[in-house]
Amino acid sequence: MSQTAEDLHTRTARLSEDVTDPLPGSRKIYQTGSRTDLRVGMREIEQTPSSVSFGEEINPPIPVYDTSGPYTDPQAEIDIHAGLSPLRENWIEERKDTEILDAPSSHYGQERLTDASLDSIRMPPSRLPRRALSGRAVTQMHYARQGVVTPEMEYVAIRENCRLQALREDPAYEELLRQHAGEAFGATLPREVTPEFVRAEVASGRAIIPCNINHPELEPMIIGRNFRVKINANIGNSAVTSSIAEEVEKMVWAVRWGGDTVMDLSTGANIHETREWILRNSPVPIGTVPIYQALEKVDGRAEELTWEIYRDTLIEQAEQGVDYFTVHAGVRLHYIPMTANRVTGIVSRGGSIMAKWCLAHHEESFLYEHFADICEIMRTYDIAFSLGDGLRPGSIADANDEAQFAELNTLGELTKIAWEHDVQVMIEGPGHIPMHMIRENVEREIEVCQEAPFYTLGPLATDIAPGYDHITSGIGAAMIGWFGTAMLCYVTPKEHLGLPNKEDVRVGIITYKIAAHAADLAHGYPGSQLRDNALSKARFEFRWRDQFNLGLDPQKAEEFHDETLPREAAKTAHFCSMCGPHFCSMKITQEVRQFAQTHQLQDMTEALNEGMKEKAAEFREQGAELYTPQ
Amino acid sequence: MSQTAEDLHTRTARLSEDVTDPLPGSRKIYQTGSRTDLRVGMREIEQTPSSVSFGEEINPPIPVYDTSGPYTDPQAEIDIHAGLSPLRENWIEERKDTEILDAPSSHYGQERLTDASLDSIRMPPSRLPRRALSGRAVTQMHYARQGVVTPEMEYVAIRENCRLQALREDPAYEELLRQHAGEAFGATLPREVTPEFVRAEVASGRAIIPCNINHPELEPMIIGRNFRVKINANIGNSAVTSSIAEEVEKMVWAVRWGGDTVMDLSTGANIHETREWILRNSPVPIGTVPIYQALEKVDGRAEELTWEIYRDTLIEQAEQGVDYFTVHAGVRLHYIPMTANRVTGIVSRGGSIMAKWCLAHHEESFLYEHFADICEIMRTYDIAFSLGDGLRPGSIADANDEAQFAELNTLGELTKIAWEHDVQVMIEGPGHIPMHMIRENVEREIEVCQEAPFYTLGPLATDIAPGYDHITSGIGAAMIGWFGTAMLCYVTPKEHLGLPNKEDVRVGIITYKIAAHAADLAHGYPGSQLRDNALSKARFEFRWRDQFNLGLDPQKAEEFHDETLPREAAKTAHFCSMCGPHFCSMKITQEVRQFAQTHQLQDMTEALNEGMKEKAAEFREQGAELYTPQ
Repeated sequence: MSQTAEDLHTRTARLSEDVTDPLPGSRKIYQTGSRTDLRVGMREIEQTPSSVSFGEEINPPIPVYDTSGPYTDPQAEIDIHAGLSPLRENWIEERKDTEILDAPSSHYGQERLTDASLDSIRMPPSRLPRRALSGRAVTQMHYARQGVVTPEMEYVAIRENCRLQALREDPAYEELLRQHAGEAFGATLPREVTPEFVRAEVASGRAIIPCNINHPELEPMIIGRNFRVKINANIGNSAVTSSIAEEVEKMVWAVRWGGDTVMDLSTGANIHETREWILRNSPVPIGTVPIYQALEKVDGRAEELTWEIYRDTLIEQAEQGVDYFTVHAGVRLHYIPMTANRVTGIVSRGGSIMAKWCLAHHEESFLYEHFADICEIMRTYDIAFSLGDGLRPGSIADANDEAQFAELNTLGELTKIAWEHDVQVMIEGPGHIPMHMIRENVEREIEVCQEAPFYTLGPLATDIAPGYDHITSGIGAAMIGWFGTAMLCYVTPKEHLGLPNKEDVRVGIITYKIAAHAADLAHGYPGSQLRDNALSKARFEFRWRDQFNLGLDPQKAEEFHDETLPREAAKTAHFCSMCGPHFCSMKITQEVRQFAQTHQLQDMTEALNEGMKEKAAEFREQGAELYTPQ
Repeated sequence: MSQTAEDLHTRTARLSEDVTDPLPGSRKIYQTGSRTDLRVGMREIEQTPSSVSFGEEINPPIPVYDTSGPYTDPQAEIDIHAGLSPLRENWIEERKDTEILDAPSSHYGQERLTDASLDSIRMPPSRLPRRALSGRAVTQMHYARQGVVTPEMEYVAIRENCRLQALREDPAYEELLRQHAGEAFGATLPREVTPEFVRAEVASGRAIIPCNINHPELEPMIIGRNFRVKINANIGNSAVTSSIAEEVEKMVWAVRWGGDTVMDLSTGANIHETREWILRNSPVPIGTVPIYQALEKVDGRAEELTWEIYRDTLIEQAEQGVDYFTVHAGVRLHYIPMTANRVTGIVSRGGSIMAKWCLAHHEESFLYEHFADICEIMRTYDIAFSLGDGLRPGSIADANDEAQFAELNTLGELTKIAWEHDVQVMIEGPGHIPMHMIRENVEREIEVCQEAPFYTLGPLATDIAPGYDHITSGIGAAMIGWFGTAMLCYVTPKEHLGLPNKEDVRVGIITYKIAAHAADLAHGYPGSQLRDNALSKARFEFRWRDQFNLGLDPQKAEEFHDETLPREAAKTAHFCSMCGPHFCSMKITQEVRQFAQTHQLQDMTEALNEGMKEKAAEFREQGAELYTPQ
């Protein structure tokens, strides 16, 4: 992670192997849809057969939802200077509702393009920007409302199913598909996701497919509470400078571990060029907070922000391909006093910038005033709103207060306006909330914002653990995901303290994958328990490698195992370091089962009911022999 | 952590400084009760004053519940060869219902005492064992039912309050005591804990005070759902040998970070001697699973276990001072077949040992058959039952199944028997449970076990994250704590993979302190939000050191902060590495507040209502000056 601008220029910048190597025991598979250029990538985790003592059976490969894009496909050629293949280009082109521009239409975009001093860090241009034909809406919501099932919708349907239909027909998966029906809190989970179901959800506003027409490299994904819960990872160079290649690598690292979307929160130098590199190489939707860049343009003086500067920034980023914008249009002038007596005031950067602007001018926020104009831009490129919660609580003390819910009401009002423009919307949520107050957040959001997808940061269930806020927030995230949040914004261990490094990003993402998956399980999302069951079966049968590989972080699991038992033989040992050979409860259970089997009895009940003391004696003798330590 | 047996013998074994140094910014305080020998230790976290820009106010010290005993008191002399001071000895003596024995009354205890080969590792004897006078019950439950408030009960009451009463009378704490009332799910949280309230809870069986008369070093604590949620940390040498001093250090390390009780799950050599060192040095209750040691005595052959061997083990450990015993008496013969079709069978070590014994003999468990005899032993030393859930689910697939709830019913039946003997009881719970099935566990337990305190392991909300099971289980732990579990058994990142090291223990404990505290907050436990509010105020005011010190792990927080901004000046900087000087939302909020103040307005609303455009202009100019980067 240390390439310099010079490296990029001389085309020697490469991603590290630890970022692109396939995960252990996994291979990339593709499921093709109704057209040959619609190929949905998934990851398949191989399993070894069960040993004789467990019935000598084949364990089928487990397909899992895969966010890593081509990076983990050894067949794919990765060249970060060329960017990823624009898999959606034909789909967009075929709709014949867009035009190619000769040049960027934002002033800033033009300025940067013609600045020769930036040549060394500028990504080699691949395509010109695309825009909707005058007056046309090119949003997935627009198509959905017209009754059109786009390739993006079909892609999403195949992806959400993750081969479930095929698995149901394969007897090898029968036992593994055992599932507890969860509680989906008013959602209507489909038995299988169909393209038509996706269309209907997008049309109703209950789900969004963020996919800017200028980001054709993106593999479509959906955010909505009737689908798998998603997670977002933030990257950004912020206060310390980091090279562009580093930023690309951060994004690839984030999708490797399971980031469904990535927000680029960069605030440093050259963010325009950095963003271009990230977008051209990103298989997942990229979100930004345009006000951050707009503020850079006025040298950090919030009071000097204008609608014109902001608008130009939106267009600049829109034509690069940003898929969703966080817009803090709900921070209205008369809500600001509601925060004055809070313990932690306004903690959202965007919210505080807008608050400062409103007070300085004593005027209503230009984001609120120009909301319809913003919608016009969004529909021209198909950018989704992530309506920011600029007044979210920054501490337990401020949870669910007047300011927070006042802003939420405004977000509901803005949602309606966006929908009138066929613009996709999700709603950002808190923050810091004690457990008993979490559910109210979802219920209010669903009501006030008419079921637009909820996208929350945590929430942190307590304030007292700086250094562990991935955990304080992972608790809240799992719960709020269960209650109906569609996407969870990750928090790393460095939250409140510093900038996350590579390991922090990994830990943050894994924590949030746990939260999201726990929510899927609690919803009874179709097929979600398959992986739990396969992993637990592997664990029970001492298939150590399978257990590692089925986990969210195979490398970490293996490292931890090897700290105590590093030898390769221990990977097949029928015991582990926790209890040692004599104490293994799983081994004993296995003996109990084997006892039932060797006595050819239908089940243990029968064995017991027959009251065979003599059989017991046999088992007693056998017991000591069943197990040979390795 | 590497002293050898020789070190111990030559009396050079010392605890490392990182285990005994006071936590940064903290001092030990004592609150004295109705008698001078009743002094309850607490930790007080100092705070620095707010700077001028935040109103220049004194921030009062924050008292916190402290499990670390004398180890973090610089005044206390620590000599692990002598053990801790027996603070309860007089209280026990004064009751005049016990006698001192000439020697251990267990065969095994006598054997070990007279084995000269153990001289080098044996702790220098300090006291002879104590036992109830014939026919007497010496349990806290017995006293409580007689209407007696023991010093232990008063100690617990003072400890649970954690100076709340004094704080309520001190205006400095007024703002910090702001609290959201939580949902305590049918509990009756007192406004303040009185000794009489403690007595009533213990008498009813809703709470227990585990405190063996042979463990007078213990600082009494209470486990019950109308009190703070507690956590347990496990230690044990297990498969790899570790020195005795290491085991003592593990215990001290565990209580340093917040372990309320410690279970010694050792299974290796010299566990009798190791336990003696641990008990004599432990300020918290120690729990064990006696069947583990009994199994060692028959060389790991479960089928050779007998009631006599088990009984001797109970007495051996009782006379050393173990405070609670996990007893898997609910694993009945006819429940075992219910586990045959599980994905992960029986995963409890104790449960599988008993299952193997039952099948080998085709007889009902001797623990179940001799339960009344066990109660007789427990009441003779005041040992609490932790009724083990030998059939707990080991995977999501097996959650809330027939076997699990069948055993729970038996635990309810055994609870009644224990209570007839005046023996204190808590009930162990799962395990692996998806979120939507967690609450049923608590509700059933409360009903079936008549409100005896619930003590759960996690539960893990998903199986798919080996290497991160502190987090998968921390989610379940926080939720089940909120729903009414009284104590949470920690899980470390090494769960399922290997033996936890020092760092794993720390991470596991902090994770569970988070879960327990999040539950206290959600309950609205009196005063619990004080620390959150103080920390958030410190965070908002850029009092970095106060923020670190008020957290659960000050050292980790500081390390993380220093990774990006290591210089000492950054500890008082009014910004941090996340957003840099221009972007700090907290700084902007502060400016917003200051604006209101400098204009001498009652509050911001007034400022806005006056519609002062000219004031806005002033602020605009001022804005750039308010902040001077450091």
